[in-house]
Amino acid sequence: MESLAIQCQGPIVRISELSRTSGVPTATIKYYLRERLLHEGRLTSATQAQYDGTHVARLRLIRALLGPAGLSVVKARQVLDAVDDAEAPSNELLGIAHGTLVDPADPDRDLSRAEQILHRWGWRVSPEDRDGRAALQDALEGIDAAGFDLPEEVLDGYARAMLDVATTEIDHLPTESPAAAVRYVVLGTVLNEPLLLALRRLAEQHVSTLRFGAG
Amino acid sequence: MESLAIQCQGPIVRISELSRTSGVPTATIKYYLRERLLHEGRLTSATQAQYDGTHVARLRLIRALLGPAGLSVVKARQVLDAVDDAEAPSNELLGIAHGTLVDPADPDRDLSRAEQILHRWGWRVSPEDRDGRAALQDALEGIDAAGFDLPEEVLDGYARAMLDVATTEIDHLPTESPAAAVRYVVLGTVLNEPLLLALRRLAEQHVSTLRFGAG
Repeated sequence: MESLAIQCQGPIVRISELSRTSGVPTATIKYYLRERLLHEGRLTSATQAQYDGTHVARLRLIRALLGPAGLSVVKARQVLDAVDDAEAPSNELLGIAHGTLVDPADPDRDLSRAEQILHRWGWRVSPEDRDGRAALQDALEGIDAAGFDLPEEVLDGYARAMLDVATTEIDHLPTESPAAAVRYVVLGTVLNEPLLLALRRLAEQHVSTLRFGAG
Repeated sequence: MESLAIQCQGPIVRISELSRTSGVPTATIKYYLRERLLHEGRLTSATQAQYDGTHVARLRLIRALLGPAGLSVVKARQVLDAVDDAEAPSNELLGIAHGTLVDPADPDRDLSRAEQILHRWGWRVSPEDRDGRAALQDALEGIDAAGFDLPEEVLDGYARAMLDVATTEIDHLPTESPAAAVRYVVLGTVLNEPLLLALRRLAEQHVSTLRFGAG
């Protein structure tokens, strides 16, 4: 945040300066403008626009969504629109965050397998969220299709662990402003997935080392 | 498993029959053969090969790796080679499984940030596994780059949850044969990621409903 505050002193007049300040090539900035990921600068003449610190911050966010989070331009625009439009922290926010990341479920699909599992755990998930149920069922069917046997204890263990993850996340929801909460929920869903998967793999190695020795 | 046993009674003579039994189009089967994902059938004449139940099982696995697990053909071949070649369950297996999924780390990269975090948690990860450390550091740097603030308590909470996940997984390592253990470790790493992420999102909704109401 400090570095951003320094960078944002005074307006950044030209796109070449925005490029130098942000480290993003001019051609890439123009592409983000065309794709409506980045908001337009204020026109100061027919050929020149003026950019400021909000553009620098937005460029950092765009780069993170397209890079580490691995989103497509279309998905990144959906996430950014959700961050821009949402007004208050609520349960709906999760729907927005998740909706940008999950493929829409076939309306005719039978999701009773996912439903039964959620019921068994007592998880309260909005009945309208068919996409989330479909994602669960897709994952389970993919495991079945591979001929891979997932013990029920492992599935239940996953559920307990993810409940701990979600509780930790919601416990740390920023309360200073609705915008901060929105940002945390939407971006945290997208940006923290690579972190969780990296940690799982390192944890597997740690547990395996404890169990089988250093090999 | 039952359906596979039924399907595998007797040899499946022609590729068209293999296609019908497996539900995979003939052109796709030929593509998998060319890409060495699927092993060749036994040649019975210059133009005809004989396929069997091992081909049906392998096709299911290929479809799962390329579909739900979302691997490229190159990555899927690496995973399948690891499953085929590995002889015993060991710590190295995790390296094989993870190596197919993580981009190789730059040999000159400073990974001290990841190192410090692993040290703080007391996680024992092979010093040679630079790729796993790089994946952790990449994820953290992506979060930083987005200007997203990840509280240390959330990071530690993620670590505890992933340790629980890993412990559950290693607890259920099949012991009936080395091949079964290899299969479990390698495929479980790849196939269960979509499941974990789907569960995280549903758990977020459950905790959010408990905390904020049904909205």
